[in-house]
This record gives sequence, C-alpha cells and structure tokens, in this order.
Amino acid sequence: MTATVHPIGSARAASLEPMIQLAAADLNHVNAVILERMQSEVALIPELAGHLIAGGGKRMRPMLTLACAALLDYQGARHHKLAAAVEFIHTATLLHDDVVDSSGLRRGRRTANIIWGNPASVLVGDFLFSRAFELMVEDGSLKVLRILSRASSVIAEGEVSQLSAQRRIETSEDHYLEIISAKTAALFAAACRIAAVVAERDESVEEALDAYGRNLGVAFQLVDDAIDYSSDAATMGKGVGDDFRDGKATLPVILAYARGGEADRAFWRDAIAGGGAEPADLGRATILLRETGALADTLERARLFGRRAIDALGAFPAGRAKAALVEAVEFAIQRAY
Amino acid sequence: MTATVHPIGSARAASLEPMIQLAAADLNHVNAVILERMQSEVALIPELAGHLIAGGGKRMRPMLTLACAALLDYQGARHHKLAAAVEFIHTATLLHDDVVDSSGLRRGRRTANIIWGNPASVLVGDFLFSRAFELMVEDGSLKVLRILSRASSVIAEGEVSQLSAQRRIETSEDHYLEIISAKTAALFAAACRIAAVVAERDESVEEALDAYGRNLGVAFQLVDDAIDYSSDAATMGKGVGDDFRDGKATLPVILAYARGGEADRAFWRDAIAGGGAEPADLGRATILLRETGALADTLERARLFGRRAIDALGAFPAGRAKAALVEAVEFAIQRAY
Repeated sequence: MTATVHPIGSARAASLEPMIQLAAADLNHVNAVILERMQSEVALIPELAGHLIAGGGKRMRPMLTLACAALLDYQGARHHKLAAAVEFIHTATLLHDDVVDSSGLRRGRRTANIIWGNPASVLVGDFLFSRAFELMVEDGSLKVLRILSRASSVIAEGEVSQLSAQRRIETSEDHYLEIISAKTAALFAAACRIAAVVAERDESVEEALDAYGRNLGVAFQLVDDAIDYSSDAATMGKGVGDDFRDGKATLPVILAYARGGEADRAFWRDAIAGGGAEPADLGRATILLRETGALADTLERARLFGRRAIDALGAFPAGRAKAALVEAVEFAIQRAY
Repeated sequence: MTATVHPIGSARAASLEPMIQLAAADLNHVNAVILERMQSEVALIPELAGHLIAGGGKRMRPMLTLACAALLDYQGARHHKLAAAVEFIHTATLLHDDVVDSSGLRRGRRTANIIWGNPASVLVGDFLFSRAFELMVEDGSLKVLRILSRASSVIAEGEVSQLSAQRRIETSEDHYLEIISAKTAALFAAACRIAAVVAERDESVEEALDAYGRNLGVAFQLVDDAIDYSSDAATMGKGVGDDFRDGKATLPVILAYARGGEADRAFWRDAIAGGGAEPADLGRATILLRETGALADTLERARLFGRRAIDALGAFPAGRAKAALVEAVEFAIQRAY
C-alpha cells in the first residue's frame, strides 16, 4: 500500500514517454486524419489551423483516447477518426480561448489571433468544430456523438461561467472547481470514455474511464493555474501572469484571498477587479501565493485529483497501458516542479 | 407560361404570412424547444442568447423546415427539435458574424457583442452550436447529422472565404456566388432537405428541397447585398453601408467595378481596399451602383435564383404548402423594393 496507492509526489521523474510509445503507431494514423481533414480549398483554413495543430501540442487528449483503447485491448481502427475529432474540438476551443483572452503567446509561439486576427481565429475554430462532428458522423456511433456533443456544450458553459466569474474575487473554491471541471475536464473525460464505446465495453467501464479523464483534467488545470504564477514564459510556452492580468480568480488566488489579512485581501480585490497591469503587482501576488501556502495547496489538491484518477483505473489489469496512464497523471502533476 | 413560370416581379405584394400561417402550430413547438434548450445555469447564456433569439428574427430557416415538412404531409413531431437545431446553428453564426464584422446593429437592435463584448458572443455562439448537435443526437438520425454537420463546415468555409476576399476588388462574380452559396445558402438548403429525411422520402425529394432552399438562399443573400446600398438603417434593421465600410466585394460592387471607367474603377479599388469611411464615398458608391445598373442587375440575378427555387418545387402537388413556399421566394425578392 505504498508506491501503488500513493505514487504521486515520488522523487522519480515521470514522463509522457510510455504513453507516447504505447500510442505511437495509432498516433501516426490520427495525425494523418488530422492533416487530411483540416484541408480546405480556402487556403487560410489549413494555414491557420496548421499553425496551431502542427505547433508543438502534446496531443494529450487524442493520446488518452488511444491509450484507453489500448487498455481495453481494442484492435480496430475507429478510434483514429474519433481521436482526431477530439483534437479538432480541442483546437477549436484553443482558437476561441485565445480570442476571448486576447492571448499573444501559446506553446511558445505567437497565437493565431495575433498573426491572422480575431475574425479568422473565430471562423477557423468554427470550421474545425464542424469538421469534428463530420468525423464523428462518419464513424456513425450515436453514443459517441452524444458524449462529445454534450462535452462541447459543457465546455462552452464552463468558458462562459469563467468569463462571468472574471474579476470576481469572491468566486468560491467549489464554484471554481465546477468551472474547470466543465471547461477543461469534460473533454479529458469524453476522450477517455469514447474508447470504451468503440471497444464495446459496458457502462461501468465507460464510467471508470470517464472518472480517470475527469480527475486527470482537473489536476491538469490546477497545475496549469499554479504554473501561471511560478514559471516563466520560456518553460510554460505562454505569457507568465496571464491569469493575473486577466483578473481570473483561479484556485491559487482564491486560497490566498481566503487566508490573507485585511491589507492582503484589499490587494487581491483591487488586482483581480482591476487587472494587475503592473509588474510589481504580479511580484507581490507571487509572494503572497507562496507565503500563504496557496500555491503549495493548489498542487496538493491537484495531487488529490491525480490520485482519484489513478484509483479510477483500479479494476483494470496491470500492464503497459495502465502503467502509461498512471505515469501520465504523475507527469501532469510534476510539470509544476 | 406567364404567372406560373414567371411569378417573380409581379405587382402583387408577396408576404411571409402564408408560410407563417401554415407553420404556426409547429412553430409554437419549435419556439418552446428553443426557449427550453437555450437555458443554462450560467445566467449569461440565456440572457445573451435570448437577446438575439427573442429579438425579432423571422425564424426563416426553421419555418422552411416546417413548411417543407408540410409540403410532404409529414405528420410526426421530429421536425420540431430539428428546426430548433437549425435556428441554433443560425444564431451561433450570427453571433460570430457580428464579432467578425464588428457590427453594432442587427434587426434594429444593438448587437450582443456591443452589449456583452466579443468574448461572450464567441462563447455563447459555441454553446448554441453544441446544443444544436445535442438536439440532433436526441433525434437520432445520422443522415440529419450528416447534412447539418456538413452544412456547418461549408458555412464556416464560406465565411473564411469571404474574409479572405475582403478588401479585394478583383473577386469574380463566380467566386462571390460560391461564397454566398456556402455562407448563406447551405443552411437554407439543409433546413429544407432535412424535412425530406424526417418524412422518409427518397433521395430525389431530398434533392428537390435542397435545390429549392439553396436557390432561395442565394436569392435572399443577393437581395440583402442590394439592400445594403439602397435602404436605410430603419427599414433594414442594421447599419446601412456596412458592407461598403467593411470592404466587402459583394455582387453590386463586382458588377459596378466591371462596368466602370478608369476613374470609377480607381474609386472602387481605393474604397474597397481602404474601406469607405467617408459618407461622401458611400454616396458616390450608391450613385455608381445605380448608374451602371449594378443594383438592378444584382436583383435580376436574385430573381433568376428565385425562379430556380420555384422550379425545384415543380414535381410537388399544388396546395397550400407549395403556394406558401413559392410566395416566400417572392417575398425574399420583393424586400428590395
């Protein structure tokens, strides 16, 4: 009951490599589908989509579909199109997110909205989103369509919910967890769940994989939230302090605000309500996040969700696929260190 | 070979009233689905969506689904959800269009992007689009899903294509017709075609209704293009001269440019490339569009597509539904006069 139950936080450096190795052959097929189906006679579409799709993404979500299919010993090829659909949905949300947040940097490169403008990013996002549904329709499973259309609605709801919470320091931890469960974890969950559908496994298997993906997604987002205050642009691939400047009450901020004295709370209220435009403000914010233990406790919560993700895999037989999925969780957490 | 073959351009005032009467009972059901399915715990979603959905739209596209179903004597209720899905897709594209064009006025009211900002419009559009697919999945027809996911891709391609053609005076008439066939007519065609699917009619019926909707859609858009230069904001419900200021080479401009002398062509090049910000430029543009017959010929082409739409209904029995669909075409054309 030591290493297997509490594997997270171990000194060993975790890696995505086992999952990449596991999924390598399938991922080539997925990449071929992605490249083929992002084409259009309208040249701007593959140009803009290719910038983001070819631009160094980890293919985390489609890899989860592939790895979960491997866990279930699925031998077919249906998951190639569906994993591509998942990546298209993800790419569409990234394009729209960057417009919503006026982001300038993603994965270490200038964002599409900066290069081609907001209109092109909005419309190419719509195209990729539609293409995702065309791929699902070609596969022909109404169950998969139900899972991914539901996930898409939930993602959009989560994004609007976060927008409504923006610049509101009073956002509660519970409400924030609901937001990221929707905007981030829903697609992780769906990516994993559809593997059970194509493998024609029963509802309990679907739910186990859904729980794995959902908890991993929450952990992943919490780590991202912490990194936004503890990394630099070079390692993160996006602008540091973006959340702070956008007035996003992420979990680190929610915890630091709850624990702060009156002066600190006034600082957070002003900074989140008004946007911390000054570098000195970001500096003070980072100090407060460390002093109150808010960053450390955000990561502790991430570890908790990570453990839940791993526990959700309990009923599956040990083996290469399960080990890769477990290590992916450890990798997601360790990114913060 | 007079009134039936060439009904368009008659002195009689056409109206949408017959189609509204025909579809009234069904439209109540569709509106109930729309109201129910635009709800969300995230208050901003129904607030923003309701502004546009309740804001005086004609429900043209869902009415076409209903009227085509009536033409086929369909007695079921499946088309209620699907017509709502069509309206959601349309509303999503309007929300995104207004962001893309930075529009300030639609249907005589301030646009959602002006009231709630671009981020909310983008994300609520994504939500409605996802909801549309959820409604289709509930209906359960893969054929309908195929038709509407394909239409959605084509719409997005058409929008990107128009964006790429923006400020390019050299856009050809053929290329422009391709753009509006995609961005506008594809959804008209799909709205009509799915009526044949729910009524379980064969491919030839699907194709006839598709052709009706597609030609009506092109006519509708060409009339809109003409109105943008010949109406005022009060009658049009959006800003007059918007296309001119956005540098859109719509058909009136393409024709006027082709027919102009060297000075006129230089004017068009500058105005479309640079955007006609000055009221005097819009005045000159309008004069040139009239003098060259470009406006009149745009409407003549609209009438041609309108005739094709009516011809596509040729094989269907005469009756109340057919008469309503024919008069809808006449109404679409007469809006310009």
